[in-house]
Amino acid sequence: MNKYIELVNEKLNEYMPIIYPEKIFKSMKYTVTLPGKRLRPVMCLEACKIMGGKIEDAMPTACAIEMLHAQSLIHDDLPCMDDDSFRRGKPSNHMVFGEAIAVLAGDALLSFAPQLIIEKSKLSSDIILKVLHEFVSSAGAYQLIGGQVVDILSEEGRCKLYDSDEETLKYIHTNKTAVLFKLALKTGAIIAGAGEEQIKEMEDFGQKFGLAFQIYDDIMDEISSFEELGKTIGKDKDAGKLTYVTLYGLDKAKEKVHELISDAHSIIDKYNSEIFESILDKILEKINK
Amino acid sequence: MNKYIELVNEKLNEYMPIIYPEKIFKSMKYTVTLPGKRLRPVMCLEACKIMGGKIEDAMPTACAIEMLHAQSLIHDDLPCMDDDSFRRGKPSNHMVFGEAIAVLAGDALLSFAPQLIIEKSKLSSDIILKVLHEFVSSAGAYQLIGGQVVDILSEEGRCKLYDSDEETLKYIHTNKTAVLFKLALKTGAIIAGAGEEQIKEMEDFGQKFGLAFQIYDDIMDEISSFEELGKTIGKDKDAGKLTYVTLYGLDKAKEKVHELISDAHSIIDKYNSEIFESILDKILEKINK
Repeated sequence: MNKYIELVNEKLNEYMPIIYPEKIFKSMKYTVTLPGKRLRPVMCLEACKIMGGKIEDAMPTACAIEMLHAQSLIHDDLPCMDDDSFRRGKPSNHMVFGEAIAVLAGDALLSFAPQLIIEKSKLSSDIILKVLHEFVSSAGAYQLIGGQVVDILSEEGRCKLYDSDEETLKYIHTNKTAVLFKLALKTGAIIAGAGEEQIKEMEDFGQKFGLAFQIYDDIMDEISSFEELGKTIGKDKDAGKLTYVTLYGLDKAKEKVHELISDAHSIIDKYNSEIFESILDKILEKINK
Repeated sequence: MNKYIELVNEKLNEYMPIIYPEKIFKSMKYTVTLPGKRLRPVMCLEACKIMGGKIEDAMPTACAIEMLHAQSLIHDDLPCMDDDSFRRGKPSNHMVFGEAIAVLAGDALLSFAPQLIIEKSKLSSDIILKVLHEFVSSAGAYQLIGGQVVDILSEEGRCKLYDSDEETLKYIHTNKTAVLFKLALKTGAIIAGAGEEQIKEMEDFGQKFGLAFQIYDDIMDEISSFEELGKTIGKDKDAGKLTYVTLYGLDKAKEKVHELISDAHSIIDKYNSEIFESILDKILEKINK
């Protein structure tokens, strides 16, 4: 796990030059290289590996997904969105570079990431195109952005489609959070040349894990300190935000995480992946503290 | 020309569904379908045609480039950027949908556009990949975003690399404006299966035309009324913005447009394209009024 994280950090650094106009490249790199667990790229590499591929083949895609994740954080933190001044314990992007550059850095990452996949992947055109298709359809209004939009609208009490809060919440969690895990796992499998059934398995794993991860994240927002989390805490409760915790309470939320992690285990255990198992276990460990 | 514009408008409408969550899809479609001259998609289709291709083959890419253009307008108009309340005679995106949705609509278009190219192009994987590569490298920090960044920094007097205002201005115009014309013309040629030399010719044409177009745009900002232009006018002068007009005056700017349009003619005339000729002539006609 640590070896993967190191590799990813090394590559993120290598892939991101600081050239003219420096300010935008610095701003992009600032958020991408903030210390983090690199869960999404690590899971992409591991999915590739357990499907019989070489992890270096998945590296550009793994890093591109981390960039997409960073992009969503930069724009999420903007004053007109969640208005967060801290991210991973550091000032958020617009606090350092200003709002205009933060908007543009996010925009630039949305093109830089697929450019990286195209330029650095040593794969057939067909495979690269399949990966790119997963990437852009996950990043857009059909999924990631759709999730963010419903999240915003639900806070304003203006989300009409779903009858229940639970359904709305599932839409948000699936599209805002699970989507990037699914993307990472599926593309890892695609790069390894896995079959449709295995790709679907990775998608299911990503869905279960992603939902668990979001509820875990909401639990941590409730119970952690600023030092542990590195971002403004208790905001969800204060904002009356719709989360599994505000909806069902802490105990029910923890129960749900256990259930989802158990589902995830049942999909993945046959692959005997230490990395996946340790990621799943760590989630349970943290919420049980 | 009008037939192309109609076709493009029809396709833009067809390609952009309004599905859940409707607000984001409406916001994306709002700016993309504002009345416009559709210069970039028309030039993409025409480049494909003069290189012996079928215009329907270039349609998804032509529309994707118009979407990228709309994306840059949505984010450019944001309060933290140019803070423009009007665009093409209508309220700008954030005035209608709010800032958060406008940020996300721009983001979503950056993924929607390449997704469209992948899903709707009936071309080989190699050609699609080549088109996508041009698309994302044009859209990102190396070009379009780079141009916008230097534009912003130069207004703040913080652009250091270039010694002269003229060089800075050329960087901005090349990367902020000419880039989308070059992208349109090059991809049109690529889709038609043109050779490297012809693709290069289209790039040169796009560069000359793009620079002419930006200076023309700055001239119009100086001499037009709000009704003609559909956006806030005289802003450049008021803001002390670096443009060819503020730098050299109106007469010199008009002279420069004539020179660039003449260069563009000399590249393109052998193709006997009525559409390209009429686009070039219209620019001269307008500034000579």
